[in-house]
Amino acid sequence: MKLYGYWRSTASYRIRMALALKHLDYTQESVDLAGGAQLAEGFEAISVQRLVPVLELDNGARITQSQAIIDYLEHAHPARPLLPSEPFARAEVLSFAAAIACDIHPLGNLRVQKYVGQTYGVGREGGPQWAKHWIEVGFAALETKAAARQTCFLCGDQPGYAECFLIPQIYNAVRFGVDMRQYPALSAVNDAVLAWDGIAPCVPEAQHDANP
Amino acid sequence: MKLYGYWRSTASYRIRMALALKHLDYTQESVDLAGGAQLAEGFEAISVQRLVPVLELDNGARITQSQAIIDYLEHAHPARPLLPSEPFARAEVLSFAAAIACDIHPLGNLRVQKYVGQTYGVGREGGPQWAKHWIEVGFAALETKAAARQTCFLCGDQPGYAECFLIPQIYNAVRFGVDMRQYPALSAVNDAVLAWDGIAPCVPEAQHDANP
Repeated sequence: MKLYGYWRSTASYRIRMALALKHLDYTQESVDLAGGAQLAEGFEAISVQRLVPVLELDNGARITQSQAIIDYLEHAHPARPLLPSEPFARAEVLSFAAAIACDIHPLGNLRVQKYVGQTYGVGREGGPQWAKHWIEVGFAALETKAAARQTCFLCGDQPGYAECFLIPQIYNAVRFGVDMRQYPALSAVNDAVLAWDGIAPCVPEAQHDANP
Repeated sequence: MKLYGYWRSTASYRIRMALALKHLDYTQESVDLAGGAQLAEGFEAISVQRLVPVLELDNGARITQSQAIIDYLEHAHPARPLLPSEPFARAEVLSFAAAIACDIHPLGNLRVQKYVGQTYGVGREGGPQWAKHWIEVGFAALETKAAARQTCFLCGDQPGYAECFLIPQIYNAVRFGVDMRQYPALSAVNDAVLAWDGIAPCVPEAQHDANP
């Protein structure tokens, strides 16, 4: 499999984590989002939305959208499941992840930040301020959920689906100046996941296209 | 089961469609989003994010986030599946829906429109203009996907998971002044779904709390 992604794309980071937790091999192709490679002629054939990540299967078929990609991995490679099998437990994990994938991340996406900065005359500082606001709104709710957990990780004794969404979003939060001391339960999960076997090669700064 | 929702909430509309397509019975409790009922003291115990929809099960347990709710319904009530079983076909449907659930709908959410209007001094007109922009960006990509389909609906000969996301988003698009003639393939799916057995009672104007 080949993953089209970018070191700092948090949605790409989710897929790197899912592949690592499932012990699946893959290659990577960098799409330079900061340089606008997603807007280049021809990229719409890879992703009609011009977004990453995109997972290309060995038969050449491609899947877009991180939630859909991880669902594919769960079904095509059921070993080392990232989601519980009981329907309600599964829904709780999906709900936690969706609060990030729907209500935090898309608002802070680069294209949205740029649009905010340009449309409302708030310049280059306006976009990051906007992103920080929605991260803090979302994390306040997720902190309540994480504080109520009984386990080291969000759903059991090992990282899974919810962590694939939370850890990249925390990386992004720190980047945009969010004070994570407001969220001790989320931070504890983050620390535990980053110490987990196989996660270190997934972090943004470890990617071959990293340019900190 | 009981659905906490609101007639004009497109994410609630998704759940009404899913329940109808699966022939599942439920009651509804209206949360008056326009009147701010989601911000009232106590509602955070029902939804920590203060968002609808929320599905309450017969044992009192609650599920938030529309994607998680529909996943629960698929697993707990597997008859009349909304998703294909083959992993890649399933991922394609989830990807189409995620392009709405992540990249269109949260940007146009009421709380986001209000924040745009207040923060950037663009008043009450600014929020709807913002919402319309992101619907048009998203629908341009989805039109390409829908135009390539071989079937009446997005994935086969009956409405399913993707339609539960598309039809409410089209309702929302029309409300915000998007000219749907730009998207003939999406419009054809919309017309076919709205004529499907059991869908008429799901539309916003048919809800008991409708206030057009």
